[in-house]
Amino acid sequence: MKIEIYDTTLRDGTQRTDISLSLNDKLAIAKRLDEFGVDFIEGGWPGSNPKDAEFFARAAEMEWKHAVIAAFGATCAVNKTPAEDDNIRALLDSKAPVCTVVGKSSLLHVHEVLRTTPQNNLRIIEESLAYLTAQGRRVIYDAEHFFDGYKEDAEYALQTLAAALRGGAETLVLCDTNGGSMPWEVSEIVRAVRARFPHARLGIHTHNDGECAVANSLAAVREGCVQVQGTINGYGERCGNANLCSVIPDLELKMGYTCLPSGHLAQLTDLAHYVAEIANLAPDEHLAYVGRDAFAHKGGIHVAAMRRTPRSYQHIDPALVGNRSQVVVSELSGRGNLLSKAEENGIEIDDQVNLNQALREVKALEAKGFSFEAADASVMLMLLRQKADYQPPFELVDFTAEVEHRAGRGMIAEATVKVRVGGELIHTAAEGNGPVAALDAALRKALLPYYPQIARFHLSDYKVRILDGNNGTSATTRVLIETRNGHRAWGTVGASTNIIEASWRALTDSIEYGVLVVEAQPQPEAVH
Amino acid sequence: MKIEIYDTTLRDGTQRTDISLSLNDKLAIAKRLDEFGVDFIEGGWPGSNPKDAEFFARAAEMEWKHAVIAAFGATCAVNKTPAEDDNIRALLDSKAPVCTVVGKSSLLHVHEVLRTTPQNNLRIIEESLAYLTAQGRRVIYDAEHFFDGYKEDAEYALQTLAAALRGGAETLVLCDTNGGSMPWEVSEIVRAVRARFPHARLGIHTHNDGECAVANSLAAVREGCVQVQGTINGYGERCGNANLCSVIPDLELKMGYTCLPSGHLAQLTDLAHYVAEIANLAPDEHLAYVGRDAFAHKGGIHVAAMRRTPRSYQHIDPALVGNRSQVVVSELSGRGNLLSKAEENGIEIDDQVNLNQALREVKALEAKGFSFEAADASVMLMLLRQKADYQPPFELVDFTAEVEHRAGRGMIAEATVKVRVGGELIHTAAEGNGPVAALDAALRKALLPYYPQIARFHLSDYKVRILDGNNGTSATTRVLIETRNGHRAWGTVGASTNIIEASWRALTDSIEYGVLVVEAQPQPEAVH
Repeated sequence: MKIEIYDTTLRDGTQRTDISLSLNDKLAIAKRLDEFGVDFIEGGWPGSNPKDAEFFARAAEMEWKHAVIAAFGATCAVNKTPAEDDNIRALLDSKAPVCTVVGKSSLLHVHEVLRTTPQNNLRIIEESLAYLTAQGRRVIYDAEHFFDGYKEDAEYALQTLAAALRGGAETLVLCDTNGGSMPWEVSEIVRAVRARFPHARLGIHTHNDGECAVANSLAAVREGCVQVQGTINGYGERCGNANLCSVIPDLELKMGYTCLPSGHLAQLTDLAHYVAEIANLAPDEHLAYVGRDAFAHKGGIHVAAMRRTPRSYQHIDPALVGNRSQVVVSELSGRGNLLSKAEENGIEIDDQVNLNQALREVKALEAKGFSFEAADASVMLMLLRQKADYQPPFELVDFTAEVEHRAGRGMIAEATVKVRVGGELIHTAAEGNGPVAALDAALRKALLPYYPQIARFHLSDYKVRILDGNNGTSATTRVLIETRNGHRAWGTVGASTNIIEASWRALTDSIEYGVLVVEAQPQPEAVH
Repeated sequence: MKIEIYDTTLRDGTQRTDISLSLNDKLAIAKRLDEFGVDFIEGGWPGSNPKDAEFFARAAEMEWKHAVIAAFGATCAVNKTPAEDDNIRALLDSKAPVCTVVGKSSLLHVHEVLRTTPQNNLRIIEESLAYLTAQGRRVIYDAEHFFDGYKEDAEYALQTLAAALRGGAETLVLCDTNGGSMPWEVSEIVRAVRARFPHARLGIHTHNDGECAVANSLAAVREGCVQVQGTINGYGERCGNANLCSVIPDLELKMGYTCLPSGHLAQLTDLAHYVAEIANLAPDEHLAYVGRDAFAHKGGIHVAAMRRTPRSYQHIDPALVGNRSQVVVSELSGRGNLLSKAEENGIEIDDQVNLNQALREVKALEAKGFSFEAADASVMLMLLRQKADYQPPFELVDFTAEVEHRAGRGMIAEATVKVRVGGELIHTAAEGNGPVAALDAALRKALLPYYPQIARFHLSDYKVRILDGNNGTSATTRVLIETRNGHRAWGTVGASTNIIEASWRALTDSIEYGVLVVEAQPQPEAVH
């Protein structure tokens, strides 16, 4: 049986204190969620800020393989009709095919927050939904604080759902907004809702304030909910939302439900890391299913026993979720990964290329703080550099980067580079907004006469992560750079205790790969 | 009704890949757990290493207020009697009043890991326990892989429990060792065990591989288990053990059980942070109940509503677990937020301080990329600087930071600073691993003769975030610094397109606040 997956990483997930996503970040995550195969992607609250409104404008022009885009908003204001309400207007303007409308289920909130009558709350629920469905939108109804509201006054909470059904909601989503419900309470209340509305489609939306968000979602599905709302890695306000990276494999592998297109569950670990990377958060290495250590095993005997009988020490085969056992170092699967990456990037692997040596190099650099998950170009350069006839487009001789604050003159950042191209030595200098921008400018200035295609290269993303931050300013810094030429994007990485050196490595890799590989290949039409 | 809390942070918790506790660390955590009021503290496996054996030698000489010390070990070897087995001998030598003995419940493990007969496994369970009880020890029996074993062969799994009861076990603890069981499976199997052994005392030990460890523990208690085994912050192998920091408040606040001495639950948040500190792990800010953000609220209207009716936005009163509502100071804040922050930090607000102006400043800087959520000290400095008699401890005149890569010499980072202290001008220089470390070193060198307390300041965290990274290397960079003096921690922030300038602002604020405010206040006894 199919359970719908409704992802709200881009809306509820961004309520987490330390997440701030740019428009491009949101679009990139949405694309990846679509490939993964979730049913709904809630892109934001278009009535609350211009960035979210712009997301929907861009999303409306894109093609989506699996997912339907949903816009989030609230019922209309207590003293207005839906047609007069800006927030409802923003939902329509978003052009999202699904509008998810949140309304109040709890009398406490009706009185204290809305400051209106119970009857008027029923009116705004029904009218807001009816107005949107009349304009041809599919509407999902989020019943805020449903479980708390039900415990205060069950009959009123059920009446709010009846109002949503009259308004044309296709699914009624029961929300544990404050996150404190226990699994048996969720079971009992969902059962009561099913008894009252036997033909309604129900969904569940939980938070982790009692550390039961996943169990609460599963309990609701066992009682008949057919949609689960949650976020990747459980990101969300306070203690987070239900973690889809646990909910989905629990539903598919433990309970026999179908959530994703066949075979897509194996993308789960990559997806979890990708979203963490874009959100600029360190992945939690101990997360169920997708954490680096989720299948980590210690000890020799243990390992030997596990090779004979993996299920003796693992609750599932980690490959099912795209993860792996930490002790079983699979040199073969590693080689396979490199080979398919090379194919993807149009790099020919001949017998000069020693994949095992490249794997060793990857592992040695990862131990120093590099991370190649978003830096294919740096990996491909490792392979290319093994070829006897490999000619780098330039060689570094020296560089300097200086920042000065002088009384009365403010800040200055200046860099010099000395590079060799063929037989020639170029020595030049440039300024910038900061030391890395100055280095980038000086390097481009030096190389442009030899490689005019560099003028098309644009640094489209620049991310810095401090590893082991409790070493203070001597911690290792990792820099990830994404470069675009109007057709393609490629990623490179550098790491060092010195942020300038880390940035320099990522910068030079990005130009080397752009000149040697990207611009040497036929250019496709569309940006991706 | 009382539920026993059995803490295994010092044994199963240390199986986590990145935890390594010294003997003194273990003793310090044990003392704190005892004050907190858990019933059992499992100190280690004396048969496995000398450090654990030494722990028990020291623990035997100490006084314990609430807890009983337990030593962990396995059933005797398959070809031995308990009297001949070194691991059983180590349990006796530990002098721990409780011995917790783990045995096999699963036929798969009997055949593949022990490589013995089902009958001999029953023998070693019964004899090992009988031998220890005959020597006057209380024995708790950990039934390893119980749920998986029960699913393979229920009758055999139940026979292993019968053997443990014949051996004299006071409690039978059902372990979900691989961590993949679902709550309803736990309920059903515990119910079956209760039916077979209606007079036995049962316990539960779960792992988080399906992100259901807490829910599984609670489900087991609902079916009659009277002991819960788990760890502080959920530390443990792979995805961790049942998190006692969630299990205990769920049991006490949601289910009405008693776990701790009256009033002790309010120590929970401090305990969680203390254990993280000793284990040298960054506290997870999003943990249920004890996380920094577990009760974090944003937004002025929201905050106002919460002051009137806290339960409208919180599932419990955070004071019950020693946590507090975080009114996050951000662009969404009001005067109330600033006033309560100033109170928290012991800053007097007199009529020289214009809160509205400070709020405008916060908003203007946030629009430039600053973020004050983790930078209370920078906010407090804004208030202090409004006072007419405010004297900064030093003033910046100039600084430079240079990074050089010279052929044959590798990387060099060097900084100079020129600062004014009172009437004097100090001009000095230093090197570092990177440009920020060099600036930090030069600034400390300049100020140390005037402010010797700076020697106690330690940069405990350094975070860099690139905002709007698609502006490439010209993007705005935000730097957050946390500084500690052994007693307190304070956070500061800087932002600029130039990472060096951003770091410099956060660095100078951290020293200014440390000298003027932190060191000027009475210092508490304990590290916190």
